Amino acid sequence: MQASARGERRLCFMDHDDPIRPWPVLKSKQGTSLGIFQPRWDHVKNPRNGHEMRALVLETPQWVNVVARDEEGRFLLVRQWRFGISGPSLEIPGGVVHAGEDPLQAGKRELLEETGCEAREWIALGSVSPNPAIHDNRCFHFLAKGVRQVTELNLDPGEDLESVWLTEQELLARIADERLDHALVLSALARVLDLRVTDQRRQD
Amino acid sequence: MQASARGERRLCFMDHDDPIRPWPVLKSKQGTSLGIFQPRWDHVKNPRNGHEMRALVLETPQWVNVVARDEEGRFLLVRQWRFGISGPSLEIPGGVVHAGEDPLQAGKRELLEETGCEAREWIALGSVSPNPAIHDNRCFHFLAKGVRQVTELNLDPGEDLESVWLTEQELLARIADERLDHALVLSALARVLDLRVTDQRRQD
Repeated sequence: MQASARGERRLCFMDHDDPIRPWPVLKSKQGTSLGIFQPRWDHVKNPRNGHEMRALVLETPQWVNVVARDEEGRFLLVRQWRFGISGPSLEIPGGVVHAGEDPLQAGKRELLEETGCEAREWIALGSVSPNPAIHDNRCFHFLAKGVRQVTELNLDPGEDLESVWLTEQELLARIADERLDHALVLSALARVLDLRVTDQRRQD
Repeated sequence: MQASARGERRLCFMDHDDPIRPWPVLKSKQGTSLGIFQPRWDHVKNPRNGHEMRALVLETPQWVNVVARDEEGRFLLVRQWRFGISGPSLEIPGGVVHAGEDPLQAGKRELLEETGCEAREWIALGSVSPNPAIHDNRCFHFLAKGVRQVTELNLDPGEDLESVWLTEQELLARIADERLDHALVLSALARVLDLRVTDQRRQD
């Protein structure tokens, strides 16, 4: 509390859930649509010092992804070319929650579309903010148990996907060497798998 | 392999690390700058069916974040207002890697700027792709051990931060109830903490 007594922001405080000061939005302006994102410029005011600035928000639909396992505990992954990195990406099934869908419906739809699979049981694993500095959406994580193929793939013209079944050991190896490196996929998998780095040098 | 024999994409395959077909970029066009992001439209061609489409890439600087612990194993978090969600966010220190910096330098700088702290030891925890569908950057995770305060905060005019020290138990409680919900923070913490959901209903 020493800094607080001098009028600075507190470095440490005891009540960790104190409300923090909101930044008033003085006005907002829509930017040029980016298709899946709607840029918005908020003119905001820093409550600490009155400094005014422009903040970018990308209005984004909700997202969903699914940790899918069969009765033997194998994991169902999808591989595809990703335009952001201009390269291949190993991921779990997922995508955008459509208007009028709830996240569970979207998870079931994406699993079916991307892999031709259904699941015996669906369990909500909570949700995360993909990036609270930029995006206004959440990504909902689900665990799908007893997954099995029920139909052929139904890919959009703009998709080119492959499904891969991996054992837990194979999956963990691909996480360890960063062949699987999508942060939102890792966020979902961390709710099911222990992803701590095993190298003792890295441990506390 | 049954689908492959019929000319469809394979649903499962044995060599999990087969190369996947690249999507050629026929031409690219820069969009209107968004400050921290440079939108780029790639005109791409689906290698599966020849379908041509426009893909958005947000060219983005590298990011870094730091799991910071003191000699007693307490975690150093920062709280701030985030414009994407128009609300408060509990995070680990981090930010953009500046031009000419390496990620470790950036981690040390961000820790000092946001908390006034330095560390006895720095350990690389690998890196992730924040979103390979959209962003071309990576986020580098570090573990900083033996963290202690060495100076007052040095906040930009556009920042309003508070630091919080949490025990491991307090931190895990905030992850469990989603008071800490930033995917990239969770990705870094998953390399140090076991984040599996404890509710038995959710376990496989």
